Amino acid sequence: MSLSASALLAADEAISGNIGTVAYGIATLGPGIGVGIIFGLGVQAIARQPEAEQVAFRYMLIGFAVVEALALIGFVVPFVFT
Amino acid sequence: MSLSASALLAADEAISGNIGTVAYGIATLGPGIGVGIIFGLGVQAIARQPEAEQVAFRYMLIGFAVVEALALIGFVVPFVFT
Amino acid sequence: MSLSASALLAADEAISGNIGTVAYGIATLGPGIGVGIIFGLGVQAIARQPEAEQVAFRYMLIGFAVVEALALIGFVVPFVFT
Repeated sequence: MSLSASALLAADEAISGNIGTVAYGIATLGPGIGVGIIFGLGVQAIARQPEAEQVAFRYMLIGFAVVEALALIGFVVPFVFT
Repeated sequence: MSLSASALLAADEAISGNIGTVAYGIATLGPGIGVGIIFGLGVQAIARQPEAEQVAFRYMLIGFAVVEALALIGFVVPFVFT
Repeated sequence: MSLSASALLAADEAISGNIGTVAYGIATLGPGIGVGIIFGLGVQAIARQPEAEQVAFRYMLIGFAVVEALALIGFVVPFVFT
């Protein structure tokens, strides 16, 4: 077996795939924790003042939208930076 | 043993696999912690105001759904970015 | 097969993609958690003092803007450092 053929086989066994998948995985770390904090503390706020349920849920949704956007942008980014 | 043969064996011992598997693993870190925060604080809210159990559990489920979606998208992403 | 051709095939099987995608993913970690903290504690502040909703929301937006800017800069950075 020549040197070039063995190098080819070595490449076949190496790690493969698109690094963009890892990028999305990392991009979910912060929003995953952040949205958890919003809804976790929001449930506590509603339990403390049940009559403020409407107001609390409105701000929970605003916070959820702006945080979740970061993760969804992470889904689009591998298409942008090809 | 020739140089080419030893290089081939070295390649057999190297790390192999698809980087998408690591991507999913990373994608579970944030949602895993986030859902934990939601249910942890939700249980505390129910313990503080047991009469608000229905309301608290509803918002816990809403928060759980939007956070868990991030991890499930991480399962699909390696199929998208091939 | 020549050495150059095998090296080319090896590149085809390796990890592909732009490392800038990973950079954006990392750039969302802090803002994702940070904005979650802002809105989570903001909802708690509004539930504690519902009459201070306007003031609390104003400062929540200020904090959100300066934190989210970090993530959006992370989207532009791969274009700057080409």
